[in-house]
Amino acid sequence: MSFWKSLFSNSDVEVSTPIYDWETVGMGGDRNQYRILFTTNREIDLYELEELCDAVGWARRPLRKVKKALQYSFLSASMWQQKGSRQRLIGFARATSDHTFNATIWDVVVHPEFQNQGLGKALMQYMIRKLRQEEISNITLFADPHVVDFYRGMGFRPDPDGIKGMFWYPD
Amino acid sequence: MSFWKSLFSNSDVEVSTPIYDWETVGMGGDRNQYRILFTTNREIDLYELEELCDAVGWARRPLRKVKKALQYSFLSASMWQQKGSRQRLIGFARATSDHTFNATIWDVVVHPEFQNQGLGKALMQYMIRKLRQEEISNITLFADPHVVDFYRGMGFRPDPDGIKGMFWYPD
Repeated sequence: MSFWKSLFSNSDVEVSTPIYDWETVGMGGDRNQYRILFTTNREIDLYELEELCDAVGWARRPLRKVKKALQYSFLSASMWQQKGSRQRLIGFARATSDHTFNATIWDVVVHPEFQNQGLGKALMQYMIRKLRQEEISNITLFADPHVVDFYRGMGFRPDPDGIKGMFWYPD
Repeated sequence: MSFWKSLFSNSDVEVSTPIYDWETVGMGGDRNQYRILFTTNREIDLYELEELCDAVGWARRPLRKVKKALQYSFLSASMWQQKGSRQRLIGFARATSDHTFNATIWDVVVHPEFQNQGLGKALMQYMIRKLRQEEISNITLFADPHVVDFYRGMGFRPDPDGIKGMFWYPD
């Protein structure tokens, strides 16, 4: 069993010591070797991000708005496949925050080719660790019904103490 | 019936044209005349805000953290009672945001002496209008169980399309 496979076989992803601002979680098999890298520092190419969001079928958003949203997000985490010298964006998540008490995670996406391998969990664990390093007290998100259990498995609780997530709708 | 009373009797608060950055919603009776003012621009005295939060029984938070949270909030709305030349902070709310798609409202507070008069609703309507002026698409919040109906009455829906608000808890 390759290092990469053994790493993800039980969905418990160990993240190695940061190398510069990158963090590596594993390598592919011998034949098709690659590494998975995480960072919060790298500038995201908006077209590459759009391609990733297209791949999961999200509605397109104006790039100038996406650019502004990234600029004013507290943290943007990205996940990359590195094969030789080529890096490909395969996952993304970002959080808004008051830099102190509360953070809210938005736009969590993993490329379909890389789903069901524990990488969504690895990306979220990376995100949570980064937010904790910033001493954010309260990490929140709004989960679509089909991913509630995914987030539950990572320590997120729905409606804790009866607190309800609410969205405003114009009349 | 005084202007102020007629204004709030049906909980529909009309907000007048902004005067500088202030907005006024009404005046008290003849004997004890005052105005209620709203603003997003005024610098908040941290001790005055702490006093307001104390009055509703919130747990105290370190002032340096509160200061940082205000600094990095997208919008802080405050509500004031003006009696003669004296202004008293009687309500507050703030929102985190990516300045584009999503905003999340936190720390909504109205002084107990001013509750049950439609002023919480007026403060929230002011907040929503300000966020809409900034062209935020998605206004969200996390509501304690006893205020879910309050927010529902203002156009907020709990768990729309099954979306769940979730909070992260450390192991």
